[in-house]
Amino acid sequence: MNGAESLLQTLLAGGVDTCFMNPGTSEIHFVAALDSAPRMRAVPCLFEGVASGAADGYARMRGKPSSILLHLGPGLSNALANLHNACRARVPLITIVGDHAGFHRDYETPLASDISALAKPYSGWLRSAASAENVGLDCADAIAAARAGNCIATLILPADAAWGKGGKPVRVSIPAPLPLADNKQIEDAAALLRNGLPTALVLGQGLTSGAALVHAGKIAARSGAQLLAPFAFTRIERGAGRPPVARIPYVTGQAVNQLSKFSQFILVDAPPPVSFFAHPQRPSVLTPPEARILALAKRGQDSAGTLAALADVLGAQNEHLQTSPANRPECPHGPITLEGLAAAVAATLPEQAIVVDESITSGRNMMAATAGAPPHDWLVNTGGSIGIGMPLAVGASVACPERPVLCLEADGSGMYTLQALWTMARENLPITTVIFSNRAYAILKGELSSLDINPGRRALDVLDIDRPALDWIALAKGMGVCAQRISTLEEFARALCDGFSSRAPNLVEVLL
Amino acid sequence: MNGAESLLQTLLAGGVDTCFMNPGTSEIHFVAALDSAPRMRAVPCLFEGVASGAADGYARMRGKPSSILLHLGPGLSNALANLHNACRARVPLITIVGDHAGFHRDYETPLASDISALAKPYSGWLRSAASAENVGLDCADAIAAARAGNCIATLILPADAAWGKGGKPVRVSIPAPLPLADNKQIEDAAALLRNGLPTALVLGQGLTSGAALVHAGKIAARSGAQLLAPFAFTRIERGAGRPPVARIPYVTGQAVNQLSKFSQFILVDAPPPVSFFAHPQRPSVLTPPEARILALAKRGQDSAGTLAALADVLGAQNEHLQTSPANRPECPHGPITLEGLAAAVAATLPEQAIVVDESITSGRNMMAATAGAPPHDWLVNTGGSIGIGMPLAVGASVACPERPVLCLEADGSGMYTLQALWTMARENLPITTVIFSNRAYAILKGELSSLDINPGRRALDVLDIDRPALDWIALAKGMGVCAQRISTLEEFARALCDGFSSRAPNLVEVLL
Repeated sequence: MNGAESLLQTLLAGGVDTCFMNPGTSEIHFVAALDSAPRMRAVPCLFEGVASGAADGYARMRGKPSSILLHLGPGLSNALANLHNACRARVPLITIVGDHAGFHRDYETPLASDISALAKPYSGWLRSAASAENVGLDCADAIAAARAGNCIATLILPADAAWGKGGKPVRVSIPAPLPLADNKQIEDAAALLRNGLPTALVLGQGLTSGAALVHAGKIAARSGAQLLAPFAFTRIERGAGRPPVARIPYVTGQAVNQLSKFSQFILVDAPPPVSFFAHPQRPSVLTPPEARILALAKRGQDSAGTLAALADVLGAQNEHLQTSPANRPECPHGPITLEGLAAAVAATLPEQAIVVDESITSGRNMMAATAGAPPHDWLVNTGGSIGIGMPLAVGASVACPERPVLCLEADGSGMYTLQALWTMARENLPITTVIFSNRAYAILKGELSSLDINPGRRALDVLDIDRPALDWIALAKGMGVCAQRISTLEEFARALCDGFSSRAPNLVEVLL
Repeated sequence: MNGAESLLQTLLAGGVDTCFMNPGTSEIHFVAALDSAPRMRAVPCLFEGVASGAADGYARMRGKPSSILLHLGPGLSNALANLHNACRARVPLITIVGDHAGFHRDYETPLASDISALAKPYSGWLRSAASAENVGLDCADAIAAARAGNCIATLILPADAAWGKGGKPVRVSIPAPLPLADNKQIEDAAALLRNGLPTALVLGQGLTSGAALVHAGKIAARSGAQLLAPFAFTRIERGAGRPPVARIPYVTGQAVNQLSKFSQFILVDAPPPVSFFAHPQRPSVLTPPEARILALAKRGQDSAGTLAALADVLGAQNEHLQTSPANRPECPHGPITLEGLAAAVAATLPEQAIVVDESITSGRNMMAATAGAPPHDWLVNTGGSIGIGMPLAVGASVACPERPVLCLEADGSGMYTLQALWTMARENLPITTVIFSNRAYAILKGELSSLDINPGRRALDVLDIDRPALDWIALAKGMGVCAQRISTLEEFARALCDGFSSRAPNLVEVLL
């Protein structure tokens, strides 16, 4: 057994059975080993940012890592932007980066690069395999680290460690359970929740789905606290029958306004709410200056368990959850408006849909409109690196093949990783991608006016992407995805219904 | 004057009048400042890898830097793969990376990232601007460093340094001339060139064009040495009337065979010839074990001047250059073959064309076929990070607007940075892009057989990109570029002629 074969067997033994990949020559033994590991699902991508974004989406939906296979420093570089997002999403992920064989590494070859330096900023765990004999153990350590720390574990795989003999699959050890937050913190939080003051419970990454969300909902029901999520959240389980979680808005004024209602904030493994970007003469911190802020649980602690413990302390475990009522609008009619588009999504969203939302300025009404839609999941960009939407949809769909996926994508962001459409077609993933074609970096134009800059022609010119206009119908066709352009709200609603029922990838371009 | 305005004025004063850009919110003051700097050509790109590859192409053709504008860590990350290539090309380039304002940087915001750590592996010079008052000086230092060292100079521009007042444009100091190689080295090289043994003069980056190539050609004429370029060269001026420079082949066996003819190698600021990748049981070094190898000039020395000095020592300055004879084939006819495609390019290539060659396996006959074509430039991938071709063509065309550009692009590589097509259309660049659609990562399939691996179905499956087939006509149309698919050699030759004479971007898909 060579090193690559032992790597694949160790991944499978550790529950990592999916690999989004862009291999090159130095990874060819990993590729060759796929035939001896038929349980490994290999998903080829045409660009590494698709692979890393897909691995993020997969982990958000499955709570366990997939792997990505990348080609030396440049392959890793192309994956980094979505690894940045994955890092902020706090998802587990195994990044395997091929490298030159040890005896070749000291030569000045075109592809020589400092892979460790490139990997370090986003890797919670990082190692280069020393030999084929060690690859299995290295991989098992990587899986354990990614799972224990909800982080990116990067294993650099020199070509001679892949082709060398003596590989041994290794079983992954079960990580030790994380400790809860300090009792004192839990008691302090309980005291705040009992004092009757308006309180926000800000839920960090991983706490707005599953058991954590239920515990948070019970705490809210008992105490009257409101559940908030950061603007850049990982995943919210929402819709009818779920405890409502309000998202902190992107626009600073709106966020300040929302948070001004609270005099206490309990940050459950969440950073203090601050604005996305800095502005001249505007504060970064969004919470009222006089508010009391309590940090409850931090990285390395069991934040979900801490919520359960807090619910226990409050005696909230038998509370009746206060949930969003079922409420969906009629299918809208007439010319396209942003409100109407949101209503059409709300009217048609199927139960158990996964919504991936990178709609930026065009989709700001979407979450409000869909609050009472059938139960669904909502995923957004966690790190501000645009071009995550379609890759995230790929990964979510691979993770949950039975669930329809709706990808709400801004045209400017979509262009970053449009290669994802090909993987959707290749894997026949039931993803409906909606492209909002405003043909501009509209958020930047908004920024100019919010800064009271009166832009000249040349400034505006580089913020428009309308010359030439992008034709998303052609782009989708070029990668094997059926597409249509719609011009009324009824056409939009019909296209969504058709898309959801097709169980195949499809794209709808909305001209704004 | 704010910091951003002083930055633009300093760039212009330093001869940097082109900016390939993907701005975001933290770069908005740079964007707004474009109207006060009308001489700055702003070229928007839809993905940062296009911007960095374009800056490489620009510098290769103009010998001076352009700038790229990127959005924090993720924007830089997306540019890194082509910065890796630019680093290997040894081109000067000014990378401006926006960052959060200083007072915002310590918060845990979605876009917070360690920009310096990401920039360091490829930056010959790196600084973060401390304030608006310093931006001009920082920029002048960056330009001087990039020019003196033919390297990437990265200036991190915090938003408050961009919007802050007190910016002052600064004139760029003229870098001190670089020293020649040691006299002893030059004498040693001259002795080798006089001893009558078969000698190869391996010309490093920047030495296969302009005066350096002429000096090398005279040395060759005097001594009988043969001029060689590394496989991954930056730019060769070639064709009828130019001294012939042989490229060291990619395929290891071919390279070993070519180099076995020489018993002496003079490496002029070039690394020792080694194989692109390592292979089991195969040596990395390509030169014969008994060959004498002399390194002449290194980074930080004036390698072109050293060649001139060597020509002087040899008394070669009045030698008559031995050049490639004019020789182009008739337009070929009939079904498509790789030889026929190369002949069609050779038959139609216009004088002063710039050929960007990322054709990988499909174009291996191209350079031999075009040796006697009218004078032209040939640019290839210098760092092995695929996806440089179309961006490089963008930059070369912006640098030399009067010259036709032919971009020979493999389909798999082209998909990495296909967004370049949009910039070609937007700027109406006279680029003819030929896509070789073999619908596979053919080089990896070749690798499997060269390693005597008998691949199974699953391995081969991830190396094919034919399911679904990419439709490059649709992809080009989607980004506003006229395209046609050809199916015979006469159609190909006609499409090339039409493309060259159109003076507009166009694309030809060749189904293989």
